[in-house]
Amino acid sequence: MELCRKTINRSYKFSNVQPKLCHLPLGHSGKCSEFPFLSHLRSVKETVAKKIERDSTMTTGAAWKSDDAGPNRIQRWGMLLTDEQLLEYGINMENLKPGVQAKLREKAAPYDDCISVAIKLTWLVYGMQDAPEPPEEIKEYLESFLGPIQYNSTACEVCKLPLNFSIFNNAQRGKADLETCHLNPRYHNANNVGFGHRECNIAQGNKTMGEFYNWIEGIIARKDHI
Amino acid sequence: MELCRKTINRSYKFSNVQPKLCHLPLGHSGKCSEFPFLSHLRSVKETVAKKIERDSTMTTGAAWKSDDAGPNRIQRWGMLLTDEQLLEYGINMENLKPGVQAKLREKAAPYDDCISVAIKLTWLVYGMQDAPEPPEEIKEYLESFLGPIQYNSTACEVCKLPLNFSIFNNAQRGKADLETCHLNPRYHNANNVGFGHRECNIAQGNKTMGEFYNWIEGIIARKDHI
Repeated sequence: MELCRKTINRSYKFSNVQPKLCHLPLGHSGKCSEFPFLSHLRSVKETVAKKIERDSTMTTGAAWKSDDAGPNRIQRWGMLLTDEQLLEYGINMENLKPGVQAKLREKAAPYDDCISVAIKLTWLVYGMQDAPEPPEEIKEYLESFLGPIQYNSTACEVCKLPLNFSIFNNAQRGKADLETCHLNPRYHNANNVGFGHRECNIAQGNKTMGEFYNWIEGIIARKDHI
Repeated sequence: MELCRKTINRSYKFSNVQPKLCHLPLGHSGKCSEFPFLSHLRSVKETVAKKIERDSTMTTGAAWKSDDAGPNRIQRWGMLLTDEQLLEYGINMENLKPGVQAKLREKAAPYDDCISVAIKLTWLVYGMQDAPEPPEEIKEYLESFLGPIQYNSTACEVCKLPLNFSIFNNAQRGKADLETCHLNPRYHNANNVGFGHRECNIAQGNKTMGEFYNWIEGIIARKDHI
C-alpha cells in the first residue's frame, strides 16, 4: 500500500533530524495521521495503543534521568546520531558508562523501521485470543503489509504459548505482563519483533532466540545427565 | 560438631530478638567468632567472604530506602517479627505495597538457618574450580557438616555448568556475575541454596528449580512442534 508520507508538523526533540510522517494511504481524505492503524485500539484499549506507539518508537529509558544512567526514553532514530550531534540535544554520551552507552546504541533504529514495528505489533494484537475485531479499514491496511490476521494465532515469541488480549489488563505501572520482545535483541524491525510474557522476555535476556533455545536445551541435557 | 554458641555481644538492630552467637567448636581457645569458617576466605578474597555473610543473613534490600520500596537490607530473622513488632524497629510494613511486603516476608529465616546457609556456601566455594585450598581446620569444620569437599564439583544450581572461583572477580557494584540462588525461592536453608550465574538466577525468576525445568522443557517441546 502506498502511503501519504506528508510531513506532520509537530515540534519534538529530533524533528529536525526526522520529521514525523503521515501513514494514511496515499490520497486519503481528512487529516494526516502518524499512527492511523492504532485509532481503533486507541478507542477500545488506550493503554495498548500507547504501549505500541511507545515500544516501537522509543528507547527504553532509565527509570529516572541521571548523568550516568542515561537520558529518559528518546526516539530510537535519535540514537543514530553521532556522540557529537547528540551533545546538541543535551545528551552527553561520554558521561555514560560504556555498558549504558552500548545498551542505548542497541536501541537505535530508523524511523521507517519503527513504524513498521508498530504495524507489526498492531497486527499481532488483533491476532490474539479475545482481541477486539478491527474495523474493516484497519484490517485491510494491516493485511496489506503482513497478510491475513489469523485470530487466535499470536503466541509468545519465547515460550510459544498463545497470548490472550486480556493479559494487557495486568499491566501495572512500568511492569507490563506482556512485553515487546526481539528475536535478536540488537535489531529493531518488523521481522524481529513480537510479544512475549514479561517473565519469558526476562529469561531470554540479551540472547538471540536461537541462543536462548540452545542454552535451555543444554541445561536440560546436563540436568538429565546428573 | 558441637558449637560454642556463646552470645557475642554486639549491638545491632535486632540484637534483642536474636543475639549473635559464636560458631567455633565447643571448648575452643581464643576469642569467640560468629563466622570462623570464613576467616580464610576473608584473608584471600574478602569480597567473597562478605558476600557469603551478606547473602546468608540479610534480606535483599531496595536499591535505596524509601517509604514504599521498603527498608534497606535487614537481618532475615527480623522478618519473622509481626508487623506490630517491626513498627518498634521503624519498619512500617503497612506502608509497603502488598507485593513488596510479600517479597520481604519470603526472605524471612531463623538465625540458625542463616548460619547453616553460610556454611553451605563456604563449602561450595571451596569446591569450585581454581578455588584456594582451605586450611585443614576449616576443611574439617565444613566437612563435619556437609561431607567431603570435592574440588571441581561445584556447579551452577540452574544450568549445571561447573563454576570457577575466578567468576567472583567479575563482580561489580551490586551486579555479581555469581549469585546465591534458591532451589525454591521461598525458603532459605542449607538444603535449598547454592550458587548460580546471574543470568541463570534471573531466568529462574520466582519459579522453583523443578518448575523452571518443566517450563523450559515445555518451551522446547512447543518450539520443536512448530
